[in-house]
Amino acid sequence: MSTLTAPTRDRVEMIVRSIIQKQMANGLGSNGRATPQIAQPQVVVNISARHCHLTQGDVDILFGPGYQLTSMKRLYQDTDFAANETVAVVGPRQRMIPGVRILGPCRKFSQVELAFTDAISLGIDVPVRLSGDIEGTPGCLLIGPKGSLVLAQGVIRAERHVHMGPTDASFYGVKHLDRMNMRVDSPCPSALEGLLVRVHPEWKLEVHIDTDEANCCDLPHASGVTLTKA
Amino acid sequence: MSTLTAPTRDRVEMIVRSIIQKQMANGLGSNGRATPQIAQPQVVVNISARHCHLTQGDVDILFGPGYQLTSMKRLYQDTDFAANETVAVVGPRQRMIPGVRILGPCRKFSQVELAFTDAISLGIDVPVRLSGDIEGTPGCLLIGPKGSLVLAQGVIRAERHVHMGPTDASFYGVKHLDRMNMRVDSPCPSALEGLLVRVHPEWKLEVHIDTDEANCCDLPHASGVTLTKA
Repeated sequence: MSTLTAPTRDRVEMIVRSIIQKQMANGLGSNGRATPQIAQPQVVVNISARHCHLTQGDVDILFGPGYQLTSMKRLYQDTDFAANETVAVVGPRQRMIPGVRILGPCRKFSQVELAFTDAISLGIDVPVRLSGDIEGTPGCLLIGPKGSLVLAQGVIRAERHVHMGPTDASFYGVKHLDRMNMRVDSPCPSALEGLLVRVHPEWKLEVHIDTDEANCCDLPHASGVTLTKA
Repeated sequence: MSTLTAPTRDRVEMIVRSIIQKQMANGLGSNGRATPQIAQPQVVVNISARHCHLTQGDVDILFGPGYQLTSMKRLYQDTDFAANETVAVVGPRQRMIPGVRILGPCRKFSQVELAFTDAISLGIDVPVRLSGDIEGTPGCLLIGPKGSLVLAQGVIRAERHVHMGPTDASFYGVKHLDRMNMRVDSPCPSALEGLLVRVHPEWKLEVHIDTDEANCCDLPHASGVTLTKA
């Protein structure tokens, strides 16, 4: 399914931008209320399909010594990119998910981010963790074109979160590591609660949810998204 | 994944019953509030993994003339059963999901219920529909051990819903085709809104959500479920 990721992400971004723009044109903010003074931030919701981050050492094993990841597409937070390269992920049920996209650049640790649907299929009992918090998490077998390796730990479901810069944080009245709720108005209306706020001077406002969460609330058919402090 | 369905469903039922029983022991209803007079119904939330319903005519084609489905397990609404028999579902991307469980007994129409994750993987753009409302929905290819057939329509994402009897409907102050909201307290807290109420004298109180919805809100690790009139 990871080949579907890029178009779905684009499509969702386009839809959400379109909703916001319509509301802005009507003098409404993304919460559907009038916003007389303060510029309403544009909420972009991107769906993270299963993917992994790798150390250069693990890239060497999977793709050959000294191999450098190549960029297929810059992500919305444009310090990162979706690589052309993919790996296969294998779990204890001897099932494989092929074509799991690598996100670059390389990191100091390798990490695989799966939806629960993926993890159940592979037989991996994944915890919900913030990216990078992988101590004590389960591992898996990774297979590349030039080699395979056993990742001792690093398989997680990424905790739903929202990236933003200081101006957006000020608009919403939140700070780094606060929580927010996001209500999605769609044919399957849902509220995702407790999104972790991550503030960094260079980040654009962007909600990251996984495929289970996006499919639960039918995000591609959403007519509105409301982000509020929890 | 459908081989996982039965244990997951049992596990969730066990967990939810356990939560309710603890709350009842504390003098609390499933909404966490004291319920001095009226007996609080026990909310059972069951996860519908992808499955299908078939006509006897389609069973004849897929399993051989006159073949009778056999019961693997009675469902919570015990007029229905999960059959030992499964089919493979194929969509326009030439991908197959094998082992899709058949629910019996046979019906007057054939219908395949998929999560969006499944449908996207197969390349089928499924609408959200109430079971049985299949006019104009997409079809698929079904493959059985003795034959295959093209289902002209009937592939849907089942709309989230709650079965109940008249006593439960009275308790919640709802009637047939009203809407309810369900909040799930878990490591991934979420509110699923607009569950369609379906009342029948013989039905037990039971919420039906699909695997995307259950995985979104991490239902297996839920510590509480609250059902309220929308």
